[in-house]
Amino acid sequence: MLHLVGLGLSDETDITVKGLDIVKRAERVYLDAYTSILLVDQSVLEQYYGRPVILADREMVESNSDEILRGAQHKDIVFLVVGDPFGATTHSDLALRAKQQSIEVRSVPNASILSAIGACGLQLYNFGQTVSMVFFTDTWKPSSFYHRIKENVSIGLHTLVLADIQVKEPNLENLARGRKIYEPPRYMTVGQCASQMLQVEQERKEAVYTAKSLAIGAARVGSKTEKFVAGTLQQLCSLDSELGPPLHSLVLLGRRIHVLEHDFARQFAIDQSEWDAIWKADYAKQ
Amino acid sequence: MLHLVGLGLSDETDITVKGLDIVKRAERVYLDAYTSILLVDQSVLEQYYGRPVILADREMVESNSDEILRGAQHKDIVFLVVGDPFGATTHSDLALRAKQQSIEVRSVPNASILSAIGACGLQLYNFGQTVSMVFFTDTWKPSSFYHRIKENVSIGLHTLVLADIQVKEPNLENLARGRKIYEPPRYMTVGQCASQMLQVEQERKEAVYTAKSLAIGAARVGSKTEKFVAGTLQQLCSLDSELGPPLHSLVLLGRRIHVLEHDFARQFAIDQSEWDAIWKADYAKQ
Repeated sequence: MLHLVGLGLSDETDITVKGLDIVKRAERVYLDAYTSILLVDQSVLEQYYGRPVILADREMVESNSDEILRGAQHKDIVFLVVGDPFGATTHSDLALRAKQQSIEVRSVPNASILSAIGACGLQLYNFGQTVSMVFFTDTWKPSSFYHRIKENVSIGLHTLVLADIQVKEPNLENLARGRKIYEPPRYMTVGQCASQMLQVEQERKEAVYTAKSLAIGAARVGSKTEKFVAGTLQQLCSLDSELGPPLHSLVLLGRRIHVLEHDFARQFAIDQSEWDAIWKADYAKQ
Repeated sequence: MLHLVGLGLSDETDITVKGLDIVKRAERVYLDAYTSILLVDQSVLEQYYGRPVILADREMVESNSDEILRGAQHKDIVFLVVGDPFGATTHSDLALRAKQQSIEVRSVPNASILSAIGACGLQLYNFGQTVSMVFFTDTWKPSSFYHRIKENVSIGLHTLVLADIQVKEPNLENLARGRKIYEPPRYMTVGQCASQMLQVEQERKEAVYTAKSLAIGAARVGSKTEKFVAGTLQQLCSLDSELGPPLHSLVLLGRRIHVLEHDFARQFAIDQSEWDAIWKADYAKQ
């Protein structure tokens, strides 16, 4: 059987009791090491589980899934995923390939950023589709997120913007020379995310949001050091030091926001009087 | 400190290791017994934790939160919530009241139906806002869900419809006589949910969906007996016996669906040739 086991969001103790039990008795244990990260290293997990954990990078999962699934018809193979197992497309893929080989698939759900973000006080019912923000380069500024945010904004919903995580990205210069050398990991901050959002708004000019739109920056959601900072998109461009280390994500507030959501979120405001003024002028009367 | 601890979706072993550790050493442990239920009883939890658990009904949480928070400035009080702690409004409320009394609040996230529903193969990124369906009565047929589904449909997104759970609802006849007698618990099925959806479409006639719209019925998501059945809304009206016992929920497919999502979902189709035909005619070309 293939067990897709969610690890939750923060450290080795965020696994469920059910998940830990399966990990301890499985034949082999893989760890998805490319769609997200925990705030602790692989070695901490291995020590906690008392067994080796095999790192599975994108290449392995996409091109060599047969090795992961080897023997799973008769033995328990675990594939560990940060957050919830079905948060990323690749894991549905792996499950589908297992089923095609008559391997039973079971999943052990866990916390996902998509629900844990509720800790910022905004109601999960009022979120639209989630979008991802990738690191812009000089020549590559993918902005499909902009249209999706526009759709959410048009019906008054909040948008969770997931900030890019780049682990084990090949160095392009070396790749061209046939050498696989990887870039050091990079984690996008709320400041970078807010600033890319404003950059695209300036170019597209569809007034989806402005520098004065209210938003919440979130860091290390679900951990003991979880931190929220609320402010305008402009303010959030320069509040990374308040938020601290990765992982970061950002929520753009929708105009259908309920006063109770506002009351909860305002405790995180970097400047409560500005927050209140913008709230009163642009949100409260919707 | 007030600890809001998520229990996950299914049984006593879905708590995280971190959550269980806090439960074992806390001063008092309350269990939210009204926004959702686990598939096991309170007594199972008590035996598993080796300690008593106090049931907190809506009345207690909304009118007597001071008792729950008593002593939390200096001691650890746990409030257990099925799913993720911030899935329902009342828990943000409790957190806010704690903070107003200078009580530190920490939450231990866990799986929520909002992310675990990804196990049906639909991508979480393609979901719009979540809606709730309540039991209709002869005189009360709240249909605000209809407008929200319409918004999701207009931008091609999937909609998760949460089916009603009624635990500890007062019997109105007895309430009128000043006696608090409670109705037996009721859990809405996918069949009831689909049929109420079609009833409202027939009345409102805005063509938000039809009897032939594709949907997925989900039962006991996140448990070992998790079950998905895919079909048209009309078919889902009479497939409750396939799905089995509660809890149920339903996903209405959006037209922006990716072919990989379709491939995964079709394995659950009650009639694959009809599913394929409708997919081809109404969804594949979007």
